[in-house]
Amino acid sequence: MRQARIQVGSYVNCEDIVSEKPVAERLAEVRRAMAAQSLDGFIVPRADEHLGEYVPPGAERLAWLTGFTGSAGTAVVLVDRAAVFTDGRYTLQLAAQADAAMFEVCHITDDPPPGWIKAHAPAGARIGYDPWLISQDGLDRYRNAGLDMVRADPNPIDVAWADRPPAPAGPAVPHPLEYAGHASADKRADIAEALRKDGQDVAVITDPASLAWLLNLRGSDVDYTPFALGFVLLRSDASATLFMEPSKLPPSTLGWLGPDVTIAPRAALPAALAALSNHRVRVDAAGSPVWFAQTLRDAGAEVLDGADPCSLPKACKNPTEQAGARAAHARDAVAVCRFLHWLDGADRAPLTELSAAEALLAFRREAPLFRGESFPAISGAGEHGAVIHYRVTTATDRPIRANEAYLIDSGAQYPDGTTDITRTLWTGPGTPPAELQDRFTRVLKGHIALATALFPRGVAGPHLDGFARRALWQAGLDYDHGTGHGVGSYLSVHEGPASLSRAGRMVPLAPGMILSDEPGYYLPGAYGIRLENLLLVRAAELPAAKRPFLEFETLTLAPFDRRLVDTALLEPAERAWIDAYHARVLAEVGPALPGPERDWLVAACAPLG
Amino acid sequence: MRQARIQVGSYVNCEDIVSEKPVAERLAEVRRAMAAQSLDGFIVPRADEHLGEYVPPGAERLAWLTGFTGSAGTAVVLVDRAAVFTDGRYTLQLAAQADAAMFEVCHITDDPPPGWIKAHAPAGARIGYDPWLISQDGLDRYRNAGLDMVRADPNPIDVAWADRPPAPAGPAVPHPLEYAGHASADKRADIAEALRKDGQDVAVITDPASLAWLLNLRGSDVDYTPFALGFVLLRSDASATLFMEPSKLPPSTLGWLGPDVTIAPRAALPAALAALSNHRVRVDAAGSPVWFAQTLRDAGAEVLDGADPCSLPKACKNPTEQAGARAAHARDAVAVCRFLHWLDGADRAPLTELSAAEALLAFRREAPLFRGESFPAISGAGEHGAVIHYRVTTATDRPIRANEAYLIDSGAQYPDGTTDITRTLWTGPGTPPAELQDRFTRVLKGHIALATALFPRGVAGPHLDGFARRALWQAGLDYDHGTGHGVGSYLSVHEGPASLSRAGRMVPLAPGMILSDEPGYYLPGAYGIRLENLLLVRAAELPAAKRPFLEFETLTLAPFDRRLVDTALLEPAERAWIDAYHARVLAEVGPALPGPERDWLVAACAPLG
Repeated sequence: MRQARIQVGSYVNCEDIVSEKPVAERLAEVRRAMAAQSLDGFIVPRADEHLGEYVPPGAERLAWLTGFTGSAGTAVVLVDRAAVFTDGRYTLQLAAQADAAMFEVCHITDDPPPGWIKAHAPAGARIGYDPWLISQDGLDRYRNAGLDMVRADPNPIDVAWADRPPAPAGPAVPHPLEYAGHASADKRADIAEALRKDGQDVAVITDPASLAWLLNLRGSDVDYTPFALGFVLLRSDASATLFMEPSKLPPSTLGWLGPDVTIAPRAALPAALAALSNHRVRVDAAGSPVWFAQTLRDAGAEVLDGADPCSLPKACKNPTEQAGARAAHARDAVAVCRFLHWLDGADRAPLTELSAAEALLAFRREAPLFRGESFPAISGAGEHGAVIHYRVTTATDRPIRANEAYLIDSGAQYPDGTTDITRTLWTGPGTPPAELQDRFTRVLKGHIALATALFPRGVAGPHLDGFARRALWQAGLDYDHGTGHGVGSYLSVHEGPASLSRAGRMVPLAPGMILSDEPGYYLPGAYGIRLENLLLVRAAELPAAKRPFLEFETLTLAPFDRRLVDTALLEPAERAWIDAYHARVLAEVGPALPGPERDWLVAACAPLG
Repeated sequence: MRQARIQVGSYVNCEDIVSEKPVAERLAEVRRAMAAQSLDGFIVPRADEHLGEYVPPGAERLAWLTGFTGSAGTAVVLVDRAAVFTDGRYTLQLAAQADAAMFEVCHITDDPPPGWIKAHAPAGARIGYDPWLISQDGLDRYRNAGLDMVRADPNPIDVAWADRPPAPAGPAVPHPLEYAGHASADKRADIAEALRKDGQDVAVITDPASLAWLLNLRGSDVDYTPFALGFVLLRSDASATLFMEPSKLPPSTLGWLGPDVTIAPRAALPAALAALSNHRVRVDAAGSPVWFAQTLRDAGAEVLDGADPCSLPKACKNPTEQAGARAAHARDAVAVCRFLHWLDGADRAPLTELSAAEALLAFRREAPLFRGESFPAISGAGEHGAVIHYRVTTATDRPIRANEAYLIDSGAQYPDGTTDITRTLWTGPGTPPAELQDRFTRVLKGHIALATALFPRGVAGPHLDGFARRALWQAGLDYDHGTGHGVGSYLSVHEGPASLSRAGRMVPLAPGMILSDEPGYYLPGAYGIRLENLLLVRAAELPAAKRPFLEFETLTLAPFDRRLVDTALLEPAERAWIDAYHARVLAEVGPALPGPERDWLVAACAPLG
C-alpha cells in the first residue's frame, strides 16, 4: 500500500468514538481536568503506549476530542484556545472533521505545536503531557522550544472520557516454528549477546511487533496487524519478563513461552523498573514512551539510548519466513488474479468501489490460511484514484465506470506472510488516452528500474528511491509519497527500520528484508496510478564482483494491465522484464486457476505487442 | 578531480618538512614539551586554525612529526607509545612514510583515536589538544569516549619544531565585481538579515573561502586555492571585523573593503570575543576550532551552533559567476583540447606521466587569465591509473606506453572560474581490449545518466549518486569514491555544503551550484577509468511541471575518447547525448583552435559509428 511522505497512515475506524457528546462539552471537561492539575495547556498526540501506527479504540483520544480520525496528528488544548495539527495527507480531512470554532487547524511541519504554544500560551505556562504517549525525542522538541513541560497524571482526556473503551482482551497465541523459523529462545540469546557486547544489562521493548517477533506470539488487539499489546524487559542473560495481563495468556501460550519468560501484569512495570537501580538499560529515545526513561532514571538506572534491538533482525526474514512469504504470495496471487478476471468480465453486476473491494475480500476469504486484510483496501475509480489516502466508505462510494482508470491497493495476512499489492486498471472497452498510457508506462518503468536494481551492500533506501522516479522526473512529474516501505512477516504491513523512501532512515538494505516497490502518479480530479509489488532483498550471485552485491526477488504475482502500456516508451530490457514477469505469473498462478480464469490469465500475460 | 570517499584530499608538498631531524628525536622533544604541561598524551590532527583541506607549511605538524604527508590523518602521542591514523586512501602511503618502530599505523574508521587512547593510556590520563586545531564536534568524540581532555598551551609540537615555517605573508587582493557579481556590502547585508531572523548578534567565520566570498578578497596563502587566511566576525548590522595581519592588506585592499569592515590583527581576537559577553554568537560546531566556542563561553556569550552562514550562498553562484564559469571553461577547453591533440600525435618526444602533466600545464599557461592549477594533476598510465589518489613525482614517473589506458585529472584557476576535468584515453595504435571498453562505456553511461537527470527541488546529492553507478552496479562493479563534489568560483576545487556523494550531507541541490560528475572504475594493477565534467545546477523549463524542477548544464568541453566506447552498450538516448555533446564541443572550442588541432577535434567529435 502506498507509503506516506513523512509517516505511514493507519486505518482504525473511529466512527463510533466521534459520534457521541458535543465537542464543546468534551473540551470543557478536559479543561476542567487540566485545571485540577494546574495545567495551562495539554498535548494530545495520536498515540498509544506503544507509539505505533496501529492503536486500539481506547487510545483514540485525538479522535474523541476533536473528531479528527486521521492516523497522524496532535491536538494542543490551552485555557482559551486549541489547535489540531496534521500533515499534508490529512489537511482536507482535518478541515472537514474538526470544528473550526473550537480548533485552529494547523500544518504540523509548517507550524509545529511547540512554536504555536510559544506564540499563544502565556510566558511560564505549565504545559502538560502524558509520559506514556510521547517519546524522549518528542518531549525534547517541546522542551528545546523553551516550554515548561509538566507530567500530567492522570491524563485529562481519560478523566473526561467517561465511556473510554477498555483495553483489548483477546488472547496472545503461539506463532509456530513452521512460520517463525527461529525459536524465541534463540532470538533472545542473539539479542542478549548484542546487549552484552554493548555493555547493556537490560533492553526495554515497547513495540508490540518486536514483542511478537521476539517471543513468537501473535494476537488480535488492533485491526489489521496480528499482535498483542504488551511490554518486554529482555535481560542480557536472555531471560525476559513479559508485561501483559495474565488473562490474555492461556495455558498453551504460557507453555509455549517456557520457563525463561516471566509473566507480569502491566501494573507491575513500575516496580520492575525500580528494581533496575544501577543497571545499564537500553531504551529507544525515539520509539519508546518517555515514561520508561524517566522511571528508570528516578530509580537510579543508567539509561542508554539505543534503537529497539529487535527492529533490524525482525526486518531480515529468516529462510523459513522467506519461504513463507513466497507461499503466502502464491496463495494471495490466486485470489487477486480471480478478482482481476472477475473485474474484467461482463457477467457481473454494475461495479462500485465498495463492491469491488468486497469482491476482492471474498476471493481472499477463499484463499487457504487467509486471516484477514493487512489494511483496509484503497479502491479508487477515476478521480478518487488521485486521492492518495482515499478510503472508500458508503458515503464516498461511486460506480466504477467504463473507460476510466481504477486503482486497487490491498493486502492480506497469512500466518506465513503479509501481502500488499496495488494494480491500476483500465476499465475499457475503449482505448485509454495517450497521456494516461504515458504516465502509466513511466510509473511502470520506475517500478522495473527498482525491481531490477543490483547494488553493493551498504546502499540504503534513500539511495535507490530515485531509480523509481527517474522516468517520471524526466517528464517533470513526480509522486508525493515514498517509493516503498518494509513489510512484516504476519505482522505490520508497515515495518521499519528500512524503507525505499527519500526521507527514510539511512539503514543499509540487507538480505531477507521485504520492501514494497510502489511508484505512482496522481492527477488530482482525474486519475491515480500506482503499481506495487513486494520485493525480497537477497544476495546477488555475481562471481566477478569484488564485494557482496544485493538484488531484489519479486514476491507479488499478478499481471500489469497491458492495455495501459505504451510500448514505444519501453527500452528492450524493460519489455523483456515485463514479458518474463508475466510468463512467471502465468506459470506459477495459472495452474491453480479454474479454466475460464486461466484462459483470462493467458491473455493478460501474453507478451507485449 | 576524484573525490575521496570520506573526505577530500589536499596536495601540499611536505617534502621539505620531512627531510630534517630524525623522527625519534622529534618525538622525544614533543614528549618533553608534553611533560612540561603534565600531559600524558597529545593529539596531532592534520589541521590548521581554519580546519580546512588546504593548509600552509607551518601547519604541517603531522608531517613534521611522523613523516606522513597525506592530507587527512591524526597522530596520538602517549608517554610510551604513539600511533598515526588515516583512512583507506592513505594506508599504503602511511605505512611507507611513517616509521613503524615509532608509530603504530591504524585505520581511522576501524580503530579510531579515542578508542585507541582508551586502550593504551592509563586510567585518568590527561590528554592534551590544541583548541585551534579541533572542532567542538571533534573534541566531543574524545570526551564522549570518557577521556580527560586538556587544553595544551602552547602546542607541544610548536615548542619542539624550532624551524617551523612562518605564516604566509602574501597580500589579500580585491576580487573585482566583474568576477564576484555581488558587492560585499550586499552579501553582508543578506547574511546579517539571516542572522537577525535567527536571533543571532554575531557570526564567527573561520573558513578562509567564506571570508574570501563574503569580502570579495582573494590571496595566495596556500597552494592551488586563491584565498588569504584570516577570520571574520560578522554582526547583525552587516558590519564586520576582519582579523588578518595589517601587513597583508595593502591600501588598495583597505579601500576595497570600505568603512564597514574593521581590520584587526589576529592577536586582537581574544579581546574581541571577550567583548561579546551577553551576545548571541553563531559558531559552527563542526567546522570551526573549539577555541572560539570556549573563549566565547568564558566571556559570557551565548554560543549558538549554526553552519557557516556563507557556505550555502557561496555555493549558489550568482549570474556573473555562472557566466564567468562558462567563460573560464571555454578557455580551459582550448588548452585541454590542444593537449589531447598533442598527446594523440606522433610528432612529440616519448611521453611520461610527468612530461604529459607538464605539457598540459604549458598549454594552460597560454590560456588567457590562467592563474594556476586548482590541484596537482593526477597523471596515471596503466596500473597507476588505478591508484585513485595517485600523484606523479620524479620517483613514481613512468612512460606512457602504446596500447594502454591513460588517466589525466587536472584543473585550473581563472579569476572568473575554477575548472576540474578528467579524461581517460587509449594510447593506441591497437584496439582496446573488450573489457576495458565495457568498463569505460559503463562509466560513461553513469556520467550521462547524472548529466541528463531532471529532478524536483528538494533532491540532494545522496539521492542522485546511484544514477552514476547503476550501469556499473548492473555488472557487479563500483568505485570507491563519491560521484561529485562542489567547486568554487576562483576558490576551492572542493567546496561544500552539497556534493553528489552517497556519504555526503543531505543538502538539497539549488540553482547556481557547480558540482563535478566523475564516476570511475579501477582495476588494481591494470588500469583506471574516470570521466569528469563539471555541471551547473539550473532551473529546468518544464511548463507542464507542477513544481520547480532542476537540471544540469554541462560546463566542461572536451571530447571523450571514442575508441574506448562500446556502442553496443549504449541506449539510443545515450548515443544521441554523446553525439550532441561532441557537436557542442566542436562548435564552441573548434573556432579557437589552430588548423591541425581543429582537424583533430573534428575527428574526435565525429558522431559515434
